[in-house]
Amino acid sequence: MRFVTVKYGNKEEVGLVETEDTKILLLNPAAEVRTGQKNFPSSMLECIALGETFMEQVNDLLEWVTSYEQTDTFYIPLEEGKLLAPIPRPSKNIFCVGKNYAEHAIEMGSAADIPEHVMVFTKAPTSVIGSDEPVLNHQNVTSQLDYEGELAVIIGKKGRAVKKEEALDYIFGYTIINDVTARDLQSRHKQFFIGKSLDTTCPMGPWIVHKSMIGDPNQLTIETRINGEVRQRSNTKNFIFPVEEVISVLSAGMTLEPGDIIATGTPAGVGKGFKPPKFLRPGDTMEITIEKIGTLKNSIEENSF
Amino acid sequence: MRFVTVKYGNKEEVGLVETEDTKILLLNPAAEVRTGQKNFPSSMLECIALGETFMEQVNDLLEWVTSYEQTDTFYIPLEEGKLLAPIPRPSKNIFCVGKNYAEHAIEMGSAADIPEHVMVFTKAPTSVIGSDEPVLNHQNVTSQLDYEGELAVIIGKKGRAVKKEEALDYIFGYTIINDVTARDLQSRHKQFFIGKSLDTTCPMGPWIVHKSMIGDPNQLTIETRINGEVRQRSNTKNFIFPVEEVISVLSAGMTLEPGDIIATGTPAGVGKGFKPPKFLRPGDTMEITIEKIGTLKNSIEENSF
Repeated sequence: MRFVTVKYGNKEEVGLVETEDTKILLLNPAAEVRTGQKNFPSSMLECIALGETFMEQVNDLLEWVTSYEQTDTFYIPLEEGKLLAPIPRPSKNIFCVGKNYAEHAIEMGSAADIPEHVMVFTKAPTSVIGSDEPVLNHQNVTSQLDYEGELAVIIGKKGRAVKKEEALDYIFGYTIINDVTARDLQSRHKQFFIGKSLDTTCPMGPWIVHKSMIGDPNQLTIETRINGEVRQRSNTKNFIFPVEEVISVLSAGMTLEPGDIIATGTPAGVGKGFKPPKFLRPGDTMEITIEKIGTLKNSIEENSF
Repeated sequence: MRFVTVKYGNKEEVGLVETEDTKILLLNPAAEVRTGQKNFPSSMLECIALGETFMEQVNDLLEWVTSYEQTDTFYIPLEEGKLLAPIPRPSKNIFCVGKNYAEHAIEMGSAADIPEHVMVFTKAPTSVIGSDEPVLNHQNVTSQLDYEGELAVIIGKKGRAVKKEEALDYIFGYTIINDVTARDLQSRHKQFFIGKSLDTTCPMGPWIVHKSMIGDPNQLTIETRINGEVRQRSNTKNFIFPVEEVISVLSAGMTLEPGDIIATGTPAGVGKGFKPPKFLRPGDTMEITIEKIGTLKNSIEENSF
């Protein structure tokens, strides 16, 4: 199941994209017809916060809808809705794992940069945009904008001191994040936050795929193309710290909450790793494809302030 | 004017503490009597988001209340309400400036650690607690818990690329933050986030003082006492990067929003700076006093998980 946040008319709705990619089932209007009640949540964060109840309601809706005839009011063609980031406004910063693929750590410095412990920084929620939305080049503050294709984990239930063996139970699903980075700011300001949090530098989407469709998150091919040229190609089996370990370390003393987003790090092949570096320019198109999830696509746009 | 978030009965209310520190004016109930309408915001984040309108309404209320007789329903004695963090649940991570006093940078390493550019990391919103709430010692994940007394800036209006000269206009007010830090996690995980974000390690309060009562934020004495012993004593005039510069750098490519919180860095005298280090233990009491604001007080409590 692939969950989207879609702008349709002047409303934001949570929807389900059918396997054949042609239409979206709008959950709130469908649930209203199904139950006669107006209590179905209207945002992705609220849906995820319902926990198992949410998935039970979705499964019930899907079964019911096959036998219901007048579905026009809650099915829309995919092209009629504008997909937003699946969580358009996270309720805290996005957690990001740094240097979680050895070859990327090496391209950013040397083998001495391969971390022994999980490294985590954050991106501001104001940086989030959806697939097909423009990434501003921020020419006034950076001349070294770079891409980073990453698998992102969406947490499904509250937990602290989560054991590795139980970590996957705390996941709702997965999406793709492009951890767009201003390399000059990242190094100038030492701690990564400023270089990671410019407006529009956290493309996310196009949807959240429920964990039931993924299986092992540490066995997924990942590829990033810039203007069609493959720059990053790897597999999440190359994680230094698998998803279970990241969740365990993060939650050791900090409560994770439903809707939390963890970007799991990027493979080798970022622009800074080339000699000379290949930084992003206005007009460049970035596509990140992850197995079983889909493709997140964004272009760079010159901004004027 | 000192704004508090207070738990009174089973409700959270925004209130105003009178100069003599003995009673709280609950703004929402007072506004309801004053205007006959139920549209006054009930959370600090909503109040701040109203911008100038909020302060106009507060000033109107204060004028009216002096001539109104039956004020019992919206004045409560200070000791009857439990003060929470003024913003109990920020809508994003707390921005924190690292090493913003030269002597602190030196005690953490050497003069080479004095930053040339503003360094920013973040603390998770789940780490926030109020004054007089316990800070857990997290004995299962750290043996080096440390205090950091800091002036915190509360942003009052949305802005990007804010010029230094206009930066103070974007401030709503000021409070105190204790940037409690697990030193072992901070160094083990390289990026500061994990060591800065354990649950309960962001005491904040006791209130937000409106900027009109402060004047220049870069001219305030600051003192931290552990079990009554003065450990940090400085003045914000010693900032390497004054408040205006921090706002300007942070907002250069990232939109600041009302209710955003910026902890401005800590002076010399943290536990790690002593030889041998003086880390926090269960039972220790931490008090941070900042001129014109007040005192934030918390104790360390052993936790059992």
